[in-house]
Amino acid sequence: MPDAANPRAARSRSAILQAAIELCAEHGFAAVTMEAIATRAAVGKPTVYRWWRSKSAVLLDALLEIWAAPVVPMTDSGEQDVVADLRRWLYGFVDTFNDPTLRPVIVGVLGAAQLDPELKAAIRERVHAPLRAGNQTCLVAAQRAGLLPAIDPELLEDSLVAPLWYRLLVSDEPVDRDYADAVLAAVLH
Amino acid sequence: MPDAANPRAARSRSAILQAAIELCAEHGFAAVTMEAIATRAAVGKPTVYRWWRSKSAVLLDALLEIWAAPVVPMTDSGEQDVVADLRRWLYGFVDTFNDPTLRPVIVGVLGAAQLDPELKAAIRERVHAPLRAGNQTCLVAAQRAGLLPAIDPELLEDSLVAPLWYRLLVSDEPVDRDYADAVLAAVLH
Repeated sequence: MPDAANPRAARSRSAILQAAIELCAEHGFAAVTMEAIATRAAVGKPTVYRWWRSKSAVLLDALLEIWAAPVVPMTDSGEQDVVADLRRWLYGFVDTFNDPTLRPVIVGVLGAAQLDPELKAAIRERVHAPLRAGNQTCLVAAQRAGLLPAIDPELLEDSLVAPLWYRLLVSDEPVDRDYADAVLAAVLH
Repeated sequence: MPDAANPRAARSRSAILQAAIELCAEHGFAAVTMEAIATRAAVGKPTVYRWWRSKSAVLLDALLEIWAAPVVPMTDSGEQDVVADLRRWLYGFVDTFNDPTLRPVIVGVLGAAQLDPELKAAIRERVHAPLRAGNQTCLVAAQRAGLLPAIDPELLEDSLVAPLWYRLLVSDEPVDRDYADAVLAAVLH
């Protein structure tokens, strides 16, 4: 990782992440190369390789920085309106999965991760685990307040997000806000 | 596809599918090549390419032939014990996801499909759509008999299988029979 205290390095890092996202959106994940990322970012290829081992690793960092909504855990509206909080959280996934720039990055990184155990572990540890931790705090608090069904809180979280991921990665069916509403209603009924 | 009426072609096809599965289990999806499949199956490489365009296409056919349990739609026990039918169906996924031979094939093919739209469409049309059709018939009948919650039947199906796929492909957490039981109980409660 570049030294954050070094403004030139920070600029290069930012240009590399942006270039990787753009190339993925324009040409598809499969066509992105470390060389093309370096060229687009106007840095040397060794600079890219100094900080990342693969294009998937670059794109994972790009996602973590740019994909704000769902990576930020469920927010607490401060109004105890848990249903509105959950809806906003699920809509974050829906909007991202339908974003023409972010969708190919997410699908590509998740696809590459199935063939690359190191990348899959990085997603679990750097994306999933912190998300899980933040979300569990919110869900357990809402369960204690009697606002959500008293099932295992990790299963509750899975039941909300898993159908969206299933449609994106497995069944290849549309993921829209109506679907998110239906998932939420079914889990809460 | 080889001519089923030609026993020699049928034997070659069977040897190719078996070789692909074995190589994937032994060396991982990424290391499988069309050449290695041909060598292991004792056929010429052009024979493999005549029937399949890629190793993923070979492995998808192998899965369709070997992965009997979940590809066969939900069975009807004939005893109106819908919960037992659903549990058996989910256990089919759990057992397959934990099978050391089949797990790398499923994860590999699903991963490759994220980077290969033609393969993803083949999975949707040749695996998901027929599964969906068969399962929907069973689920709708059980809903009409008042045995299952009266939510959208496609959402009902997604709610049951999606958490298992989510743990396999996204969160990278264990998928065991206890988890399947908890999913089923939460959906039915």
